[in-house]
Amino acid sequence: MTSDPKSLAESVLAGDRLALARLLTLIENEVSEGLEALNLLYPSTGDAHLIGITGAPGTGKSTLVNRLTHFLRNKPQPKDVQAPHHSPRVAIVAVDPSSPFTGGAILGDRIRMRDLAGDAGVFIRSMASRGAVGGLAKATASVVEGLDAAGFNSILIETVGAGQAEVEIARTAHTTVVISAPGLGDEVQAIKAGILEIADVLVVNKADLPGADNTLRVLRSALKLGYPEKYDSKVEEKDTADGSTWVPPILSTVATSGEGIPDLAQVLEDHRHYLEISSEGHRREREHLRFRLNQLLRDHLIARFVEENPDGRYEELFERVLARELEPRKAIRLLVQGETE
Amino acid sequence: MTSDPKSLAESVLAGDRLALARLLTLIENEVSEGLEALNLLYPSTGDAHLIGITGAPGTGKSTLVNRLTHFLRNKPQPKDVQAPHHSPRVAIVAVDPSSPFTGGAILGDRIRMRDLAGDAGVFIRSMASRGAVGGLAKATASVVEGLDAAGFNSILIETVGAGQAEVEIARTAHTTVVISAPGLGDEVQAIKAGILEIADVLVVNKADLPGADNTLRVLRSALKLGYPEKYDSKVEEKDTADGSTWVPPILSTVATSGEGIPDLAQVLEDHRHYLEISSEGHRREREHLRFRLNQLLRDHLIARFVEENPDGRYEELFERVLARELEPRKAIRLLVQGETE
Repeated sequence: MTSDPKSLAESVLAGDRLALARLLTLIENEVSEGLEALNLLYPSTGDAHLIGITGAPGTGKSTLVNRLTHFLRNKPQPKDVQAPHHSPRVAIVAVDPSSPFTGGAILGDRIRMRDLAGDAGVFIRSMASRGAVGGLAKATASVVEGLDAAGFNSILIETVGAGQAEVEIARTAHTTVVISAPGLGDEVQAIKAGILEIADVLVVNKADLPGADNTLRVLRSALKLGYPEKYDSKVEEKDTADGSTWVPPILSTVATSGEGIPDLAQVLEDHRHYLEISSEGHRREREHLRFRLNQLLRDHLIARFVEENPDGRYEELFERVLARELEPRKAIRLLVQGETE
Repeated sequence: MTSDPKSLAESVLAGDRLALARLLTLIENEVSEGLEALNLLYPSTGDAHLIGITGAPGTGKSTLVNRLTHFLRNKPQPKDVQAPHHSPRVAIVAVDPSSPFTGGAILGDRIRMRDLAGDAGVFIRSMASRGAVGGLAKATASVVEGLDAAGFNSILIETVGAGQAEVEIARTAHTTVVISAPGLGDEVQAIKAGILEIADVLVVNKADLPGADNTLRVLRSALKLGYPEKYDSKVEEKDTADGSTWVPPILSTVATSGEGIPDLAQVLEDHRHYLEISSEGHRREREHLRFRLNQLLRDHLIARFVEENPDGRYEELFERVLARELEPRKAIRLLVQGETE
């Protein structure tokens, strides 16, 4: 099956799910046809609410993402709205920075299929590193761009853990949710405290388990440390989106029963509103784009360098560094600037 | 306090701990004096055994690293050795990819200080991302190089989790140990299965807890999946270093009591020996160096580009991409190749 970028882009805009799946695969594999189609789609991007959802293993992220998706798709319409009701279309991008050596990602997908199968307003995409870990954040940004152009209103980007990949992926999202759960040990809490900096919303999932109060307490202390001036005890009461500042609220959920999910959906909406009316939304959009452009620039410079230097100079210097006859930094200077020794 | 790179490098080689600490700080902050000293030290590197130790939060990594260090420092000398006994010098590099928002890293250090304080043959260095997450792997590689030059025999590089940073850091190490523990949930096991690809040695710590047998079983199944031909049931019995192939052995430890630590030390020694007598050691050394050089090359190309393009062209194109008048990839082409539209 071949098609030119233009007709691929048109099919995606027309809502063709197979074309979308194909576009995402081409993008992930950096096939030029897909990247050109993405270029054509670029003017159609920028409308989706990009929501990053991360947390340590065992916090129930996948279940929560499924429940949230289900809620967004089936949310009751306010009574005073007369216009025909359109539920928001939701895409899920599940990013697993570990490789698909065993079926972790596959298992999660199977559970998803059962919960959300048959809903044409939901699109699920799993991404694994497949060895090329370094490119995962970049590929995720491109895939999200494709889903944005395809008209999904909310894009949930689910990642595991608190590593470098998660922080980079958080830079893609407008709103970042960090999930905790009771009973995962103190070290886990410390890590979560570590990613508080990227959290716009904090969720204590499995709030029906013993120890949930303690988890809440730990997060609250960490928040106080991070926002010594802004923080007050009311943050959980949603008095947060006053338009000028945002202190991450802490929500309790039980994803398996759906408890707290409507509140979470509301807080996500509040945060989106906050980004719109404050300068923070613009600031983030600029920062994300700068990150993205710098990434592309880096790739481009390397590709050009490799193209311009096809001879064995790199290999020759490589061997000399390996033999410890030459320092790595000196080798790079010799290579790039054509310096003589 | 100032000193030239040459005298700094000499002090480090002479075993001056303060000079070493200063060198590592200069390297971490990319101060040219430190990088030049590192260049001078480069011929003295390559002798240390670099051991990466990673695992999910709550597996007891830090305790295990402390115990292992203590064991290596105080290992009984074989009776038939007549020469004066020198215990190996051990350095610990604790890498925390989450930011030091709260005291996770600091707490760990405090426990370390208590256990290992006063031993001049031990050097501990904590590294946190301090916002610049992208540079953490690079900084770690340089710091390890500095410790290698300073004559440490074993360098234990401890990282948390299974993210991109960990995989990159694993590329620095000769031997990578992945730690599991019972009772951390199925999702955790799946993640661990995900990093089996980078594991040379598998450890089930907290082996005295209920569920340890199950964790062992899960890891064994995952290994069988990964090494369908090589794997046999004897892997735990250390019949692994036959010189031609290496199947990651699975060890049980109780780090808090020290149980299993001598076996772990032996397996690490076995793996080092395996790397020496097989072609795998050379292969890895080449791969690590290539990764390192490519990283330096990338940084250098960016720095040169910024230097050569000091005017507002980047900013102009940035604004147009932000306004969605221009696609990101097209902007980069215009910027780098001076293409006209």
